[in-house]
Amino acid sequence: MRAYLDCYPCFFTQALKTSRMILTDEREIWKILSALSSYLSGVAFGVTPPEIGREIYRIIAEYTGVEDPYYELKNKCTKQALTLYPEFKKIVANSDDSLLTAAKLAIAGNIIDFGIAEKFDLEKDVREILAGGLTIDDYQEFRLALESAEKIIYLGDNAGETVFDRILIEEMRKPVTYVVREKPIINDAVYEDAVAAGIDKTAEIISSGCDGPGTILGMCDPEFLDILRTADLIISKGQGNYEGLSDENLPVFFLLKAKCHVIARDIGVEEGSIILKRKSKSSA
Amino acid sequence: MRAYLDCYPCFFTQALKTSRMILTDEREIWKILSALSSYLSGVAFGVTPPEIGREIYRIIAEYTGVEDPYYELKNKCTKQALTLYPEFKKIVANSDDSLLTAAKLAIAGNIIDFGIAEKFDLEKDVREILAGGLTIDDYQEFRLALESAEKIIYLGDNAGETVFDRILIEEMRKPVTYVVREKPIINDAVYEDAVAAGIDKTAEIISSGCDGPGTILGMCDPEFLDILRTADLIISKGQGNYEGLSDENLPVFFLLKAKCHVIARDIGVEEGSIILKRKSKSSA
Repeated sequence: MRAYLDCYPCFFTQALKTSRMILTDEREIWKILSALSSYLSGVAFGVTPPEIGREIYRIIAEYTGVEDPYYELKNKCTKQALTLYPEFKKIVANSDDSLLTAAKLAIAGNIIDFGIAEKFDLEKDVREILAGGLTIDDYQEFRLALESAEKIIYLGDNAGETVFDRILIEEMRKPVTYVVREKPIINDAVYEDAVAAGIDKTAEIISSGCDGPGTILGMCDPEFLDILRTADLIISKGQGNYEGLSDENLPVFFLLKAKCHVIARDIGVEEGSIILKRKSKSSA
Repeated sequence: MRAYLDCYPCFFTQALKTSRMILTDEREIWKILSALSSYLSGVAFGVTPPEIGREIYRIIAEYTGVEDPYYELKNKCTKQALTLYPEFKKIVANSDDSLLTAAKLAIAGNIIDFGIAEKFDLEKDVREILAGGLTIDDYQEFRLALESAEKIIYLGDNAGETVFDRILIEEMRKPVTYVVREKPIINDAVYEDAVAAGIDKTAEIISSGCDGPGTILGMCDPEFLDILRTADLIISKGQGNYEGLSDENLPVFFLLKAKCHVIARDIGVEEGSIILKRKSKSSA
């Protein structure tokens, strides 16, 4: 998915939010916004949001010297999610369709996102999603694809959400390769975040090689691309992975909450919708 | 008032909104946003919002060839406000304090602003403001200043709002010089908008010489500056004039609705507040 016009103001809102986590001097933050402006003035129409997001956080790191401003928040989110793990495991075990419940739970975990949402109430939001339906519901196709799949790739998104991913992977009862970002970017999960969530107990963890907030194929390791292109089922979590892969011809199921109106419009749903969507080959 | 950090995303939102009034091709609008980025990358900390606003609309005019995209909307607003004129004149005449009612009405007219608000319901909003109080209420000082004033300058803001200004000027019962922008910028009133509202029946109309959406002293005509600096009462309508004059040592009363959170914070009130505020000399 290319960056839409409405992404433009949001790039600055995101830069401002992260800059304010590190700096208080408004003049210094103004310099970061000026540098972002300079970069954006040369960005061609058609570039994806995670490619631009990558540069936003690179500029912030360059000006502040802080490479991982979300480090503590990520750890906090993972810990909070882990305290909910036993309870959610019970909910999944006691449900009529434990795979469906685990899938909904994994999408619910996608509300953990400091790049977009100002605030979220994890427990409340998760319960609402579990109680409600999916706006796009390709669950039966997902279940069938899973039954026959031999090579399954699971593209992780945010730290903390990883705990919810773990529950879904455990429920899938198949060998899974779980993919994280190469380097810290916003609150996206890197290797240690996945391990902290206990993903290593249920899946192999690898890096995509991409240090942007999504799966941008042009920035991924060739080894990872080989794995991706030979997979027969790819589970893509969250907006950043959707943005990078929505136009690629791959056997993907997108699991996400459409947290901004731009993504929602691209998918064709209302903002806030809960999505389990099979990538249609015709639209590739 | 300098541009705050939170103004930055809003510059793009405003550019996008006006560009979409003229263009449908997203690639062409992207070029405008790129040009705005290039300009902003060189803007120093401390510049006022109307200085930047002036450049935003200059870039749009350069790329689209459309110098006055709000021309028809301005005419429509003036016509709509004129249909309400007889009714509001009656409300003012029948009120306990006709000058206060006219002042509140003039502030209410400030809701007409396509630069900021997406939508407004003129009649409804005006009735609410008339029924409510002023958040900052320097009305008694205003009344006293008016009694002794001999040289009164009234800085207009938006077309349509001009009709409400006319009612206040009529109620002031003193000679008034009414000031408009030099050239079309957003929906700000130029000479013909003031005449269309009937301001010429009650005041002398002059241009400030400034073609930005506010009164930016460095861009005004020397003749206008002479008039401004010798005035003993200046009535400043709206955010753009506030942004240009809030740090100047002049005998100003600011009449406005704080329509964005940045202005509201600068004044020290909640967003949406109704303001009749004397410029305090100490803060100059």
